[in-house]
Amino acid sequence: MPSLVHYPLDPASRLIRLMCAEYGVPLDLEEVKPWLREEALLELNPAASLPILFTDAEMPIVGVLASIHAVEDFYTPEAVGGLFPAAPLDRAEMWRLAEWVLVKFDDEVTRYLIEEKIAKRDQRGATPEPSVLRAAKANLNEHMLYFNWLLASRNWLAGEEMTLADFALAAHFSTLDYMGDIDWAKAGSETRDWYSRLKSRPAFRTLLNDRVVAMPPSKGYADLDF
Amino acid sequence: MPSLVHYPLDPASRLIRLMCAEYGVPLDLEEVKPWLREEALLELNPAASLPILFTDAEMPIVGVLASIHAVEDFYTPEAVGGLFPAAPLDRAEMWRLAEWVLVKFDDEVTRYLIEEKIAKRDQRGATPEPSVLRAAKANLNEHMLYFNWLLASRNWLAGEEMTLADFALAAHFSTLDYMGDIDWAKAGSETRDWYSRLKSRPAFRTLLNDRVVAMPPSKGYADLDF
Repeated sequence: MPSLVHYPLDPASRLIRLMCAEYGVPLDLEEVKPWLREEALLELNPAASLPILFTDAEMPIVGVLASIHAVEDFYTPEAVGGLFPAAPLDRAEMWRLAEWVLVKFDDEVTRYLIEEKIAKRDQRGATPEPSVLRAAKANLNEHMLYFNWLLASRNWLAGEEMTLADFALAAHFSTLDYMGDIDWAKAGSETRDWYSRLKSRPAFRTLLNDRVVAMPPSKGYADLDF
Repeated sequence: MPSLVHYPLDPASRLIRLMCAEYGVPLDLEEVKPWLREEALLELNPAASLPILFTDAEMPIVGVLASIHAVEDFYTPEAVGGLFPAAPLDRAEMWRLAEWVLVKFDDEVTRYLIEEKIAKRDQRGATPEPSVLRAAKANLNEHMLYFNWLLASRNWLAGEEMTLADFALAAHFSTLDYMGDIDWAKAGSETRDWYSRLKSRPAFRTLLNDRVVAMPPSKGYADLDF
């Protein structure tokens, strides 16, 4: 069985878990906290980033871009097709939004909130820095406006097909939602409907059962009707 | 003819220019300064990131991930094969290092130096912040050690084949080298030899003629024997 070195609330790890679940590929999970930069992790990946995927091959697949392509190469069920659209321009739109989420959204929102709210729990005496939390939340609001604008004119994030871009954003949303950082009462209804559709997929179940020690998820995290 | 909205010293734009040159695809170039966030750029790409590739299709290809895949899909010469290795595990190693360069190296080194040394020239009265320059250079030194360690045991960055990962790192190096931020006297000989091989490729010529107004390149930037 393939296995994944992951952290439960790491959005890149969640994306690969979602893809594997969608494709019916069971995964053994091994948990690691990347911010501790432990020797065992650095030996696998000197970048200390996640996820790291072990397929049946001898070599680990390191990082989210390598893992996305490996899952798509190795595990796409022929009958249903994968999460990459067949038409080149649809794929380009998917990559545009995948990059938006994996690089820009992560850089402006998610990684700050994970650093402040989760990684700092492992530093004695460290507490979240309010100015950083405020900046990340202000950025999140801007991104939410854009996603809502997009989803008002299309069924899925990158067009009329569900793609990798949807899974990437849903992975980030699920992490933020666990930490209580998405205010669904204020979110646009298009975004809320879109997330509700994704959250109802069987592939999502594995994420909704995740629990981090001494940090229960926000109310509504696992509710399909949130 | 395809065209590219780019900035001459933007490493992501340089990567796509290198790929197109390697594949024999001429490009019309349109220059833009992304940090000015001008309306014309935001209309094409609300993320205000580069590059943006116009193929013969009606829709622009936005961002570096979308452009990499589009160039590979549309323009790979069948006779020579592309910059993605054929074997899945070799591709995984290519993506690991492409992500290292496009995300980690950019995030820890290149984007700070571009912001401080180039973008700030367009802000009246702004000057480069010495502490940021120092941190970026310290990070650069760490990355150089890793690249040199890798290149001591393999011909190319991701293995025995030249791949996208080589072009990605060479694009970043060429930007840093233009600004005089690589100390070749101190760089490991493996890295220097590797860059010399890439710089000698015909595809590289287009980059070596770039000039930024009122900012001449460092001595040795365009020399093949540097």
